[in-house]
This record gives sequence, structure tokens and C-alpha cells, in this order.
Amino acid sequence: MANRQVIYARRPEGVPVEADFELRDSQVPTAGPGLLHVRNLWLSLAPYQRLAMAGRYPFTPGFGVGHVMPGETVSRVVASGDPGFAPGELVLCRGGWQTEAAVPATDAETLPAGGPDPRLWLGALGINGLTAFAGLIDTGRPRPGDTVVVSAAAGSVGGLVGQIARIAGCRAVGIAGGPEKCRLATGTFGFDACVDYKAEGWTEALKAACPDGIDVYFDNVGGSVLDAAIPLLAIGGRIVLCGSASQYNAATPYPSPPLGLFVGRRAEVRGFVVYDHMARRDDIRRRLSRWLADGRLRNLEDVAEGLDAAPGQFCRLMRGETMGKVLVRLDS
Amino acid sequence: MANRQVIYARRPEGVPVEADFELRDSQVPTAGPGLLHVRNLWLSLAPYQRLAMAGRYPFTPGFGVGHVMPGETVSRVVASGDPGFAPGELVLCRGGWQTEAAVPATDAETLPAGGPDPRLWLGALGINGLTAFAGLIDTGRPRPGDTVVVSAAAGSVGGLVGQIARIAGCRAVGIAGGPEKCRLATGTFGFDACVDYKAEGWTEALKAACPDGIDVYFDNVGGSVLDAAIPLLAIGGRIVLCGSASQYNAATPYPSPPLGLFVGRRAEVRGFVVYDHMARRDDIRRRLSRWLADGRLRNLEDVAEGLDAAPGQFCRLMRGETMGKVLVRLDS
Repeated sequence: MANRQVIYARRPEGVPVEADFELRDSQVPTAGPGLLHVRNLWLSLAPYQRLAMAGRYPFTPGFGVGHVMPGETVSRVVASGDPGFAPGELVLCRGGWQTEAAVPATDAETLPAGGPDPRLWLGALGINGLTAFAGLIDTGRPRPGDTVVVSAAAGSVGGLVGQIARIAGCRAVGIAGGPEKCRLATGTFGFDACVDYKAEGWTEALKAACPDGIDVYFDNVGGSVLDAAIPLLAIGGRIVLCGSASQYNAATPYPSPPLGLFVGRRAEVRGFVVYDHMARRDDIRRRLSRWLADGRLRNLEDVAEGLDAAPGQFCRLMRGETMGKVLVRLDS
Repeated sequence: MANRQVIYARRPEGVPVEADFELRDSQVPTAGPGLLHVRNLWLSLAPYQRLAMAGRYPFTPGFGVGHVMPGETVSRVVASGDPGFAPGELVLCRGGWQTEAAVPATDAETLPAGGPDPRLWLGALGINGLTAFAGLIDTGRPRPGDTVVVSAAAGSVGGLVGQIARIAGCRAVGIAGGPEKCRLATGTFGFDACVDYKAEGWTEALKAACPDGIDVYFDNVGGSVLDAAIPLLAIGGRIVLCGSASQYNAATPYPSPPLGLFVGRRAEVRGFVVYDHMARRDDIRRRLSRWLADGRLRNLEDVAEGLDAAPGQFCRLMRGETMGKVLVRLDS
């Protein structure tokens, strides 16, 4: 049986389209010293992959046109070239947009047998959960009673940020595009409020939703939404610069907000990179697992079936049409 | 005898010139309930006064053309309308650019008799010292061994920041305009290095002076000097946004640095306003006084004689021609 792969075929102009990708059948990989041969079960799609296509993502060096698209996977070991892994085990690894892969054992992590639904390791218990927790709690440092605002509130990170803010005793206010996403935030995720940035007069609505100002703004989108949040910061308010999804499809840089605004609000602005927080991963996962188990934390997924559906699903993500964690089921 | 005053006469275009000010003789003020009649002995000149002339300084509301220029003074009480103040006492107040003033008692502070040289209350023991200490220590939070970079290193705040950084066990690297200011920084103030931003290849010199990167950048100037410092930040480096003197004479805003740079360095950027730290004033003054007394801290002044010299002295300050704390002696 062949290894089905999605290849980065053409540099997108603006929002990616399916023709920017090519499907091909390739040789099945093999294990070797230090390498695991894995079958990918679940593939995570995420906006950083668009940045990688633009050559603007520092954590996928060497990636470019002609390569298999990068992505985290939950995979099953077929053959192992490392004594720490046995065939049949589930692993979390960077298997990429393909049905099989050879991955370095050093970059794979065994998942506990009988643990939670494996796809959670790509969402709330994976990089998204770590991003939400470490970004909000360790970097944003909210205090109980704070107003936490998060953009892309219906997204895989934003939805978790709002829920963790609520657990931390804060008011959670989301910003999202469209009424359906706002309903998800206030309904399923339990945000105190969510503002539709595509609606007329939305900045007034945001102001009304934050009568005491914004104590922590968790920024997933940058651009004009960030511009709107800054003047609403409470004195001493904090901004976590986590993502700038509104700019990932853009060819020209969006102008930065005037730094004088930060002085006026005595704001603290911090750049956040999740990979700095890997050492805290297990501790944070334990907390998130507990909250998932007792229902305080909801994980929502937007699943496409089969590798061939990956390009279309990714284009939906980059058009802002998905909600929750965006996955592709590869073993269907 | 008349009260001599400097009036804000004309909105400056770019760097102020003497014709933007007018001298006039006015009526001597009187004390009244809650008001002190004071004679001003020393006047502090500072870049914020240029911002106030442009209507861009939030702490001098109502100030505009036709008004007496604002400024802190060390003054002697002539007559008191408040039981807490007696004639003959020295006070720190906002007496403005004039030889006499009526100031609210609530905005005046008695200075200890037999204390340090009164003009120190306008420099190292005044707002400048509080700015340097609270901005560097409380906001920048340097650790021993950190590399602290400060711009306007020969200025009233910058010179103190570098010296306090050294006391805190850090390497102090200054940025200043011209070889004379750099010599002051490394000589009198004891900086480990100082880079002349007007010299060819100065960003390479800054890089060479910070081989482990910049842990704390104390920004007094903004603009292109800030742009040059950001890429040199160590991972997790901190920027204290204290002033942007390079922009005070400018009519059009300078573009802000791309926020993605802050993410790449995991930088923390904090806006600093000294008035937030007034509650710590006495504690900080005690520390600074001790260091002044034992010679670990040097206070340098650039003094002009007589009120009529104030406009010219201020224009020198705004042309970047002064070093240390800029004062006018009014009782000469």
C-alpha cells in the first residue's frame, strides 16, 4: 500500500486554495536506527502551517514548495528503530500531512494506553492547551476578578483561553467573527460575553462588555482587532502576543500600534512562544485533564474525513470558517 | 518688585527657538486660603515641557499658548495660607517658569532643613531619580549580571539609570549623541560602555557592547534608536518605555516597530509613568540619598543663571546640547 501525501505545491496568494496543494502516492517509509515508522491516525491543522508556507515560521526550517506539509499527528507505531517504542503503541509526533511517516524517536512521545480520546492530544491536551494555559496564566498573569478578552474566541486556542479564564475566577469576553462563533463562545464555552467583530459598531460593543477595561488581552489575531483592544486596556493591563491570524494571509505588514498608547495605559506587552513552556507540559496537561474530566473544560473539534480532505479543510480554516480544533481523521 | 515670567508665546515648529517664548513682568502673587506665596530658587527644565507645548502631555491639562511655562521648582515660602507651611521654609512645588508663584499647599512638599543641596530635589532626589529607580528596578526588574542598555545616557534620567544598574550588579551600556556625552557616561557615571548613535556603524558597536544581548532596554528616546535595540534583545528581554525624546520635536508620528519582533525575542514591553510610583518616593529617595552621600551615585547639572536665560537653556536641552540635569538658578 502506498503512502498518501499532501505536498506543498504552490505559494498561496492571500487565502490558500486547494490548487496550492497536490496529493500524491509515495513509497511507504521504513524504520531505522532512531527512527519510528508510524501510521498517522489524526492530523492537526493550524494557522502556523500557513506561516510556514510563507517562509515566516521559524520552527519549520528547510520547509518549502515540494515538501510534505508539516503537522502534528497522533500515530501508531508500525516498526520501531528505538528501544523506547514498541509496535502498536500510540505516539504524538510530527507525522505531517500523510498517512504514514518515518519520524525521529527523539521527537515522538508515547501516549498512555487507556488514556483520554487520542485526538485530545492534538487539542486541549496538546499544543493548543499548553498555549492557552501557559499564555494566559504564566504570561498574562490574570487575577481573580480580572476581565480577560481573547480574540479568535471560537478557535482551538481562544476557546480554551476563555474557559481557563473563567476557571481562574475572571470574566471572559470573546471576540469572534459572526454570530455562530459568538454563540459557541457564550454557549458551549461559557464566556460571559462575545463580540462579533464583523458587526457594525463592534468596538462600542466590546467597550460595553468591558466596563472596567481589559486587564488581560490574549491576542490571537493582531491587526485592527488588536488596535481596537489597546485603548480599552485598564491601567496596567497586559497583552499576550500569541498569534496574528488576521495577517497570516497578508502579503504586506500591518502597521503596529503607536507605542505611546502602551505608555498611556501603563500596559505590559509580552511576546509568547509556546515552545518555551514545554518543560511545564505534563503539569499543565494534568490540570487540563482534570477539568476535561469533570466537565469544566469543553474541547470542540471540526473534523474532516480522510487525507484527501486535508487541503480543503485547511482552506476552510484559513478562511475563518471552522470552529474549535481543526482535525483530519486519517484512519477512516 | 515685579514677578518675572516666561510665557508660552508661539507653538514651536520642530525644535523650539527663543522666539517661541516671551518674558514679561507681572503682578506679584499673594497667598490665600490653601495657597502658598513662594519665591522660586531653582527651576527644572525637562523634555516633557516640550510635549506640553504640543498639547501631547496629559499631566498639564489646560496649559496652552499665553500661559506661564510649567515646571518644578525649589522655592522658599514667602507667605502661607496653610497651617502646614511657614514663611522661610523650603518647598518642592510646581512654581513654573517665573520668579514668584502662588501654588496650592496640597501640591507642595516641605524640604528638610539642613538636608542635601536643595537643587538635588529637582534631580537625583526628584522626579528624575524616582523615574530612574522605579523605571529600572520596579518596571525593568534587572537581575545581577544582566546587560542594561539606556538611551540618552548623558541625560538626567539616563545617567542615573546606568549608575543604578551598576549598583544592582548589572553591566550598564549607554547610548548617547556624540563623543563628549559618551565620555561623561563611561567616565563620570561609570558605565561599562557607551555608544555614540551619531557615529557610523553605531548599531554594530552596540551589538559588540552587548555580546549576550540586551536584558533590559530603558528607552528614553524611541524612534530609530529603539528600532536598533529591539533585535539585540536577549530572549525574554524587557523594554521600559519611559520617554521618546527623539519624537518630541516631531510633527508626524514615527512608525512603531513590528510587534512580531517582540514575539521573536519573547520580549516584555512595559509602559512607564513615574506618577504611578509616587507612593514609593520616600523609600526610593532614602536609597538614592545614601548612594549620593557615599559617592556611588553622581548627580551632574547643567545650570543657567537667571530666569531670562530659561528659554535659551530649554532650546539647548531640546537640541540635545545639555548634559545631566538641566536647571535654571533663579535667585542669582
